[in-house]
Amino acid sequence: MRAVTIHGPKDIRVEQVPDAAIRHPTDAVVRVTHSCVCGSDLWAYRGRVPRQPGQRIGHEFVGVVEDVGADVRTLRRGDRVVAPFVWSEGTCAYCVAGLPTSCPSKGFWGDPGADGAQGEAVTAPYADATLVALPADVDEDRMPAVLALSDVMCTGHHGARGAGVGPGSDVAVVGDGAVGLCAVLAARRLGAARIAVFGHHRSRAAVARRFGADIVVLADAGSVAAHALELTEGKGFTSVVEAVGTADAMAAATAVAAPGGRIGFVGVPHGSQDGIDLRAMFDRNLTLAGGITPARTYIPHLLADVLSGALDPAPIFDLTIGLTDAPDGYAAMDERRALKTLIRI
Amino acid sequence: MRAVTIHGPKDIRVEQVPDAAIRHPTDAVVRVTHSCVCGSDLWAYRGRVPRQPGQRIGHEFVGVVEDVGADVRTLRRGDRVVAPFVWSEGTCAYCVAGLPTSCPSKGFWGDPGADGAQGEAVTAPYADATLVALPADVDEDRMPAVLALSDVMCTGHHGARGAGVGPGSDVAVVGDGAVGLCAVLAARRLGAARIAVFGHHRSRAAVARRFGADIVVLADAGSVAAHALELTEGKGFTSVVEAVGTADAMAAATAVAAPGGRIGFVGVPHGSQDGIDLRAMFDRNLTLAGGITPARTYIPHLLADVLSGALDPAPIFDLTIGLTDAPDGYAAMDERRALKTLIRI
Repeated sequence: MRAVTIHGPKDIRVEQVPDAAIRHPTDAVVRVTHSCVCGSDLWAYRGRVPRQPGQRIGHEFVGVVEDVGADVRTLRRGDRVVAPFVWSEGTCAYCVAGLPTSCPSKGFWGDPGADGAQGEAVTAPYADATLVALPADVDEDRMPAVLALSDVMCTGHHGARGAGVGPGSDVAVVGDGAVGLCAVLAARRLGAARIAVFGHHRSRAAVARRFGADIVVLADAGSVAAHALELTEGKGFTSVVEAVGTADAMAAATAVAAPGGRIGFVGVPHGSQDGIDLRAMFDRNLTLAGGITPARTYIPHLLADVLSGALDPAPIFDLTIGLTDAPDGYAAMDERRALKTLIRI
Repeated sequence: MRAVTIHGPKDIRVEQVPDAAIRHPTDAVVRVTHSCVCGSDLWAYRGRVPRQPGQRIGHEFVGVVEDVGADVRTLRRGDRVVAPFVWSEGTCAYCVAGLPTSCPSKGFWGDPGADGAQGEAVTAPYADATLVALPADVDEDRMPAVLALSDVMCTGHHGARGAGVGPGSDVAVVGDGAVGLCAVLAARRLGAARIAVFGHHRSRAAVARRFGADIVVLADAGSVAAHALELTEGKGFTSVVEAVGTADAMAAATAVAAPGGRIGFVGVPHGSQDGIDLRAMFDRNLTLAGGITPARTYIPHLLADVLSGALDPAPIFDLTIGLTDAPDGYAAMDERRALKTLIRI
């Protein structure tokens, strides 16, 4: 079968790889129909995080079950499924508590030795626990929105939850990438009274507004705080989502949070530690909560709204390509010609 | 009147200062009967945080109202009161929300131009909002415990709350100073199933156990994590209180927190920012919450238990002196001959 591999910085290839196959009785083989490129894949693409030459890549997918191991109970051949970006075995204390990202048996698609999601098929460990089956009659048009549940929509939701967003919240989202935009959707869904997005990209402002942002501020990191304080009469926002992972973004998030406020951090940390201002957090009693999203826990909660169309993250995909064009799909995101690339397989 | 002043590192004096007096109609004058020395006072004593030469010092007191301004409604001469370490005006959005430490009119006893708590009397701004009256029949023996509500007991309580302590929690307290010990008391009161204290001082282990600690580990900072993981079969503690403020303490707190756990941070940050491991927080979905305790909000909640004896932080005071001996009281704490010095005035 064919799959995307990474051989070094900016060296993405589509190659023949060993076929996905049942190796353990709890495995399923899933034929991938939709995958996509994540902002976190770009860190590898840019050489900022290491990968083994030829390592598989991609961790978001929707597909059709092709085969199941002898111990798989809830899935059968032909089922459509969406996968969270972390697999987990489902019965440990963390899985039961809703934190499958801390399951001792967890793993990531694309880990060395594991199938990546950007390929024709995937061997899915702990299939019953990992995969979420979709109703048989899901409209094909909904699949991009369902795919977003693999990671980015659940990550935005986790950011909004970490920020304590609820009915009436005054929300700032720092970052207008796909995660930030999904945080806007999540905050709107959770009942926020007002949502302000602080970003850099004029082209994304329209998506932010479509997703429910009331205010979109295009500003360099250094001026975010001044804008935010002006918007809140000096008070700051009660809920802030840090959706980038850089020092600048975390510093901005801390600066714009109101006393007693919460920062939901879901940007994968790439320097964001340096942006924390613990003294400001101490003086203002700020809470920092978030981390890697437990997507498997959130998918069942969000899926109904996605299927009904009430929650529609699909507009984050502004480029759709075939598997062969994966190198171009990465380049487009790297060069900011695309917000998020969907790979239709 | 006489009061304690600080003129430089290790230069504590007892001097004549202007009498406390009503300056605004919302002021009260309180004759101080009990004050004490805080670990945070030691930062000034050691020259680590600047003070103006001759500045007043001390921010914890219990006393008797001597005079009230024309607009004071709830207090009268002769009332016994306990003061939180921050005054606040009581009607702003933050005061109403229970976060008087963010009141725009807030101030600290000992701020330049304000009376310190270590002295014969204090002018208390916004007396109705700031001071908490005690029942007329409070036993004199309870006064040290009541005094602890000014700061340290409420700080320990805030740490336990930030750490999410509730019935059944498995709690680690990093630090065996007065704040850490009060966090033990607070965690026990909130229903913790198990409390482990990580400290340095053999002499404090007995107090920790008396306060409800099940386990006291005397260990250098570098080995706290190993001890903690052994105690929890590798899992870590669900609730961790960081009660020191140093990088080592924060690093230990992060290291011993279980996935999905919470760190309550109440050590005044003196380098603790450097101990945060945001990547570990991200991977394990840790929450960091805490800050300066809103003592004025907590005092009414904790006072009944203090008055009944159900909550008794008094044993943190292991040295009682008169006002004249304040320099010795500071030296005793600085040299770790005393855990916390009570000044009986």
